[in-house]
Amino acid sequence: MNQRLSKFQAWMKENDIQVSFITSSENVFYLSGFYSDPHERLLALGIFQDDEPFLVCPGMEKHGAKNSGWESEIIGYSDIDHPWEMIQQAINKRSKNISKVAIEKEHMNVERYEAISNLFPNATFISAEEKLRKLRMIKDAKELKTIEEACSLADFAVEVGVSEIKEGKTELEILSAIEFALKKKGVTEMSFATMVLTGANAASPHGNPGLTKIQKGDLVLFDLGVVVDRYCSDITRTVAYGDINEKQKEIYDTVLNAQLAAIDASKPGVTSADVDLTARRIIAEAGYGEYFPHRLGHGLGISVHEYPSMTETNQLILEEGMVYTIEPGIYVPDVAGVRIEDDVYITADGVKVLTKFPKDLQIIRQ
Amino acid sequence: MNQRLSKFQAWMKENDIQVSFITSSENVFYLSGFYSDPHERLLALGIFQDDEPFLVCPGMEKHGAKNSGWESEIIGYSDIDHPWEMIQQAINKRSKNISKVAIEKEHMNVERYEAISNLFPNATFISAEEKLRKLRMIKDAKELKTIEEACSLADFAVEVGVSEIKEGKTELEILSAIEFALKKKGVTEMSFATMVLTGANAASPHGNPGLTKIQKGDLVLFDLGVVVDRYCSDITRTVAYGDINEKQKEIYDTVLNAQLAAIDASKPGVTSADVDLTARRIIAEAGYGEYFPHRLGHGLGISVHEYPSMTETNQLILEEGMVYTIEPGIYVPDVAGVRIEDDVYITADGVKVLTKFPKDLQIIRQ
Repeated sequence: MNQRLSKFQAWMKENDIQVSFITSSENVFYLSGFYSDPHERLLALGIFQDDEPFLVCPGMEKHGAKNSGWESEIIGYSDIDHPWEMIQQAINKRSKNISKVAIEKEHMNVERYEAISNLFPNATFISAEEKLRKLRMIKDAKELKTIEEACSLADFAVEVGVSEIKEGKTELEILSAIEFALKKKGVTEMSFATMVLTGANAASPHGNPGLTKIQKGDLVLFDLGVVVDRYCSDITRTVAYGDINEKQKEIYDTVLNAQLAAIDASKPGVTSADVDLTARRIIAEAGYGEYFPHRLGHGLGISVHEYPSMTETNQLILEEGMVYTIEPGIYVPDVAGVRIEDDVYITADGVKVLTKFPKDLQIIRQ
Repeated sequence: MNQRLSKFQAWMKENDIQVSFITSSENVFYLSGFYSDPHERLLALGIFQDDEPFLVCPGMEKHGAKNSGWESEIIGYSDIDHPWEMIQQAINKRSKNISKVAIEKEHMNVERYEAISNLFPNATFISAEEKLRKLRMIKDAKELKTIEEACSLADFAVEVGVSEIKEGKTELEILSAIEFALKKKGVTEMSFATMVLTGANAASPHGNPGLTKIQKGDLVLFDLGVVVDRYCSDITRTVAYGDINEKQKEIYDTVLNAQLAAIDASKPGVTSADVDLTARRIIAEAGYGEYFPHRLGHGLGISVHEYPSMTETNQLILEEGMVYTIEPGIYVPDVAGVRIEDDVYITADGVKVLTKFPKDLQIIRQ
């Protein structure tokens, strides 16, 4: 039995939950090691306090599930089988008196909820999502290693982007070059739609890459992430193309100081709010408070946005094993848009920065 | 009141449904003309038999909803409002005795279902999805026009792909060139992940584009679609790079004959099965039956896969206004993979083919 499953079972015992029925691809993957997105077909993990868990998947994926290392029962069904009947049998073999069932209430649809409610007409249904978010928040050594690989590819992607900057090139041309270079390295999925923004476009926190051409004196912002073995990275760098003015430099330095201070403040025992406010105060003191309109960062892992949320009000205490982004930004319309983002891992006594592309202001002269 | 909404209200009356609460972005768009994907935030359309419908959306999207042409009530909520209370008030203003509510059971999650069940503790909940699929199946003139634009861009994309074929280029290089050319034309979304497959890769119906290099004597398969104003197109073409062998030619001709025959068979009054079987028989008679492992096609519109499903068993009778793909294929491992796909629209007495890139075997010699 893997450790993640054991921790989840301990939670079930504490809360008198006899059965958990997990159906989101991400949480099934987290608990079983098997990833699949069978679209409208059913994928599920049945978990019990002590009995053997079972995995339910389309029959043609059974082999893949075994290969992924799942050693407990696998219930494969064909398109003419009735998976809910098979599930009922599997549950009846294990447990009889079921009064409390955990499901993912944000993920499960009403159609499936009606099917599972029929199996347990007298049970109470509670949500497993908050617990799974908390478990997923603390990364183990293998997860850290995977995220580090994803971060290293994100560094590479920014490097490609910077090397492609040239007068008159469009944001989309540079974006295509980055993604093509990643594809050649075997990357098949990005964490989210890659951003290459320049000039006025970068000065909006919600800009979209388009046909804007890069000009001397512009800041160019890259925000992108790479998925490796289902884990995401997320990096932002802003570089200068040719000489920029004093105001742009001041904004860059302010963001960088705030970002470095938030990294320094990150360690076990402090709160998310402490870290957010460390950066936020520096930006406010420099007179740019109103131009930093978003939270400092977000956890990342199997999802590109997960726990912990790095906001100025979140009193969550940071612990070893958490991975999150630190990404302050200042966006002054018609002046400059600068954001600098790293992914960090909380260690026993501080922090390890996982993204490594240089952050000193780079002035590109090619 | 728009026609789509009137038809939906007629269905509510027939089925004694007092309230429908539609929450998927696609169906809200279909019925209201307003598209939004507010992620975890609530977007909803409240519909009544006779009373004024209302739209629920995040406050910052209220302006966009008005601009989209929605003329009835808009309930905008902020992050500190309680949208379900606002919804309850809006419903109470309209209708009191609610015994039957329609929702999307495949789309709505349990969390929201519990919230709406609390509003109507004595109501029966039924699914609106099948009805909406049937309404969406018949396209109006405006939808047809939009799909035609999407098809014309798909034709252009194949043209770009064919022009990029050159000895030693990889599938991914050609794919990048296609997508970049589309981006320059303002395309921001593809119907699905673009496929450029060659050689052995094309001979699998589930190949993925990679670093395989194109060689003389290969067949090259393009499968792609473009989204225009939320409507999808979907085209497949297979071309020859240099001279191909007799077997490859025979397979190409068989697929083309099957595809043309299925187009000829498409008209009001025949069934989906009739059309599928027209193509399937030609392929079987040529000895390739086992190498055509998928349905003939699928409806398309706001979703790239919608009704009608073109299978050998679907007894659905075709009607004017339906749009679907005709895409027979033959995949013989180590010999050839050929698929030819058009999008068609059923007219009063036949069919209009919406994708127009040539289908005679093209032998590329560049």
